[in-house]
Amino acid sequence: MSQYQAPLNDIYFNLFDVWQLDQYWQQQSQLADLIEADTAKAILEEAAKICEQQIAPFASSADTVGAKLVNGKVLLPEHYHTAYKSLSEGGWTGLSGDAEFGGMGMPKALSMMVDEMLCSADIAFSLYPGLTAGACVALLQHADEATKKTYLPKMYSGEWSGTMCLTESHAGSDLGIMRTVAKPTDDGSYQLTGSKIFITAGEHELTSNIVHLVLAKLPDAPAGSRGISLFLVPKYLPDASGQAGERNKVTVGSIEHKMGINGSATCVLNFDDARGYLIGEPHRGLACMFTMMNYERLSMGSQGLGAAERAYQNAVSYAKDRLQGRISEKDPNKAESILGHADVRRMLLNIKAMNEAGRTFATWVASLLDKAKYDNCQQSAQRANLLTPIAKAFMTDQGFDSCVIAQQVFGGHGYVKEWGMEQLVRDVRIAQIYEGTNGIQAADFMLRKVAADKGDALLKLLAEIKQDILAQPIDITISLTSYIDQLVQLTKAVIAQDSRAQSANACDFLALVSYILYGFMWYKNLAALKVEVHSSTFITAKQYTAAYFFTRVLPKVDGLLSLLRHDSALVDKLTVEQF
Amino acid sequence: MSQYQAPLNDIYFNLFDVWQLDQYWQQQSQLADLIEADTAKAILEEAAKICEQQIAPFASSADTVGAKLVNGKVLLPEHYHTAYKSLSEGGWTGLSGDAEFGGMGMPKALSMMVDEMLCSADIAFSLYPGLTAGACVALLQHADEATKKTYLPKMYSGEWSGTMCLTESHAGSDLGIMRTVAKPTDDGSYQLTGSKIFITAGEHELTSNIVHLVLAKLPDAPAGSRGISLFLVPKYLPDASGQAGERNKVTVGSIEHKMGINGSATCVLNFDDARGYLIGEPHRGLACMFTMMNYERLSMGSQGLGAAERAYQNAVSYAKDRLQGRISEKDPNKAESILGHADVRRMLLNIKAMNEAGRTFATWVASLLDKAKYDNCQQSAQRANLLTPIAKAFMTDQGFDSCVIAQQVFGGHGYVKEWGMEQLVRDVRIAQIYEGTNGIQAADFMLRKVAADKGDALLKLLAEIKQDILAQPIDITISLTSYIDQLVQLTKAVIAQDSRAQSANACDFLALVSYILYGFMWYKNLAALKVEVHSSTFITAKQYTAAYFFTRVLPKVDGLLSLLRHDSALVDKLTVEQF
Repeated sequence: MSQYQAPLNDIYFNLFDVWQLDQYWQQQSQLADLIEADTAKAILEEAAKICEQQIAPFASSADTVGAKLVNGKVLLPEHYHTAYKSLSEGGWTGLSGDAEFGGMGMPKALSMMVDEMLCSADIAFSLYPGLTAGACVALLQHADEATKKTYLPKMYSGEWSGTMCLTESHAGSDLGIMRTVAKPTDDGSYQLTGSKIFITAGEHELTSNIVHLVLAKLPDAPAGSRGISLFLVPKYLPDASGQAGERNKVTVGSIEHKMGINGSATCVLNFDDARGYLIGEPHRGLACMFTMMNYERLSMGSQGLGAAERAYQNAVSYAKDRLQGRISEKDPNKAESILGHADVRRMLLNIKAMNEAGRTFATWVASLLDKAKYDNCQQSAQRANLLTPIAKAFMTDQGFDSCVIAQQVFGGHGYVKEWGMEQLVRDVRIAQIYEGTNGIQAADFMLRKVAADKGDALLKLLAEIKQDILAQPIDITISLTSYIDQLVQLTKAVIAQDSRAQSANACDFLALVSYILYGFMWYKNLAALKVEVHSSTFITAKQYTAAYFFTRVLPKVDGLLSLLRHDSALVDKLTVEQF
Repeated sequence: MSQYQAPLNDIYFNLFDVWQLDQYWQQQSQLADLIEADTAKAILEEAAKICEQQIAPFASSADTVGAKLVNGKVLLPEHYHTAYKSLSEGGWTGLSGDAEFGGMGMPKALSMMVDEMLCSADIAFSLYPGLTAGACVALLQHADEATKKTYLPKMYSGEWSGTMCLTESHAGSDLGIMRTVAKPTDDGSYQLTGSKIFITAGEHELTSNIVHLVLAKLPDAPAGSRGISLFLVPKYLPDASGQAGERNKVTVGSIEHKMGINGSATCVLNFDDARGYLIGEPHRGLACMFTMMNYERLSMGSQGLGAAERAYQNAVSYAKDRLQGRISEKDPNKAESILGHADVRRMLLNIKAMNEAGRTFATWVASLLDKAKYDNCQQSAQRANLLTPIAKAFMTDQGFDSCVIAQQVFGGHGYVKEWGMEQLVRDVRIAQIYEGTNGIQAADFMLRKVAADKGDALLKLLAEIKQDILAQPIDITISLTSYIDQLVQLTKAVIAQDSRAQSANACDFLALVSYILYGFMWYKNLAALKVEVHSSTFITAKQYTAAYFFTRVLPKVDGLLSLLRHDSALVDKLTVEQF
């Protein structure tokens, strides 16, 4: 495998040229003194170093060694400890954490770029800091002051880590039927009993304590998902001084043997009258947990993009080195680099076109979250909400496809472990599944984000995009606006359907919207190119890749438009026995 | 994982109703006494039993145990030995072998159905009999009588097995640059020296001898691929009585650690003055090997279909059992089978629609090979030749996609090893890569099978299909013929392009042709339904699935048509550094 190099140039281009976030940061009172372009670059360069040097080179050995359950303890690959220590000591675990509780207070747009690098380096490893950051977001928003003061500083500093405990063996997408119960005790805490599965980072020795955020039902809970509450259940109960004290009654039952992310401990956790503390209102736990879930769903997008970026770099490097076949050369004994083959270039360009659009998309969503937070901007919050299922589902679907394509560039060498490509495919596959399968994301997008407001948020966004494009037209304008017009028509048709038809159309509809938004991302890339700033190599690479996207990738939406124009009622025709 | 059940009903439907091969067999002097519908059914039922009972249940343990190299010997999972013995004793290893040399002489259309079952049961295992059958085809066609008499009976009986040794570490798709040499000796044999990699079933103890078919260069060889000759190199040299005698100088250097098919020993084989025998003419080895390669490429299609069929059965079974969410039921504590969810049905229908079309396609190509063989029909041979890259590339691409979709139905449970879904994804992935990557298949299809004859064979086929459809129109006729018309136009445009553009378009063009041919397969399915023969359940399942294919799958070709109408020249715009 080639040496991973963080794509800092493209990251800077997205932050500072496409979305001009350095200007936004300077206008923001909470950010102006904290960050400017140069500090952002310095931070990203440091993060790149850790990812490139301390994590990426060892991802393969982490896959081989894996997480192991030994005498009730989960042992992780040795270098995870040193890498995690580097992250903690450098303040990376609290990068976007609230400054009041010891975080660095950096905007999401910055931490999202670090997320991508971590995921390129090793998705399995990235989950340990990733889940902690998500848990902190939930605590910051829903916990009381005392809880925040006890937990957040230790989590931001990397001393303690976090998890989210939702799934039970019979309750995954359908949390309403969960069985874990929380009994109130005299001191205001709760005793939790139940068994949770698929708990990422549920047990390990990387940190001196683990803070579980657990969904459970109170004795008087209403039925279904309206009766779920959120509890904080630490592995070690903090003592009076706030240090990890008495061992809580939560134990690891087993860890899963999985297709990939072997360095990540996926645990069965048993709660046996474990002490927990209510976070937020009783029975409102799902809403609280969704604060964390939405955060994690964005991170899934980074997993898709990060793996695809690594896969792309490896495939380009291999294609340059591998000599096979003749293109210009006619000597039958002399082979040339396969980067000369049209089909290899096609594969690489497909990945490149999707990755770069994906990076612009990720930066966009992160910047909307920042605007929602720092400007208290409702429209930005709503828009981030609309785009989150796309970041989760489309970016991971594309990430997986890109890793598979990049593996294909290697021929037989892509299938053997030695080259690392098959690990990328195995690792990234999970991102399409966890944190709500991509089918669940599509349903969320279609039903809750589009149909629920009669398409208002989506149609407004599309109208703005079209206006934006027409205000500064470039040569791809016509094809992109024509697709937008068709999407508007189709959206109107879809919101008029019943929810059954919407559910059947959800996945393809999400993909359709996503491709067209990626078209807008490429428009934004092109519009941000400046001869006085960027090298001609950078400019023409962007222009050709954009042109490739508009002529050889975006036309795929004609297929999606075509099938979505057909009735979906056939999905319900077959009886159970006919499957 | 659910118990695998061979899809005998659909197999019979394809053999006897769609393609009416029982009638063809009866008309054939070489087949009339050998096989009729009832014997075919009896054979298939027996094959199904072995696959269902002796192979499929143990595929997961074969994956865990894997092939192991111990002291120069390759040890395979224990049950492979008993299963292989069952295949040998039942005559399955010689099912389509030539009767003159002890084979059962059955038509390819029948053995292709057995191939599918074997691949559903365990792709890794299927390679041992599969490669042997392929090697026999090459020997039957190109070896001299004495060689055939020595080798074929023992290979048909399963006593000996076969391999094909093409790839070297620096020479995969580009065989012309291989370095293995064959020096003539005084007794007319040759001494081979060189190292081959990725040799499936290259070493093992399943059989008492292994017959390697090896590509190498003679000392006076012309440069490039025109200087390659084919040699038979047995692991043990047959003695005067034709029994395995002296050990030949071919040894296993190592075995690969791979993404999947762990039960298959993928070997580095070192030839160190190993004794070999020339097969066919000097320097014409590639053509001889292609006899075997084309056979294997069809088998790859069976791997795609077989894995997808198994994945489909598992996913349906899981979807029936898994209770999650509410569809009709309103009790928030009561979940229903996820087979009720529109998106789950969509996923399953996508797989079902592709699998059943794939089975009809496989039967078609096999029947063309039979007509080429028994009727010496040149047109059938040419047509099988045209369709082989589609069987290899499209069927494996679809097989992989279907396994991934089926894995998705399982949610998180699809990612853990326990349910077997991730193994299917890992195992089937190789089928897109080996025996010539799917990119190589697409280039072969585009350049050699379509452009080389100016589209003649393809356009003739499309004209016949259209005529066929219009002669007996049904309700999908209009959409299918309209797509055929568009494909004809596009084919004419593509054959007018230079080979560089054709290469860039090859993969998407192959997919486009394939989808439309699958449309014809669904037409053939519908046209073969008879109320007096088939149950109403069978008929309506076919009709609904066909309707689903025509309205929700086939429209994808609008995307392919659209992108193929755009110039491909952009693939060549980026410099090497710009990737």
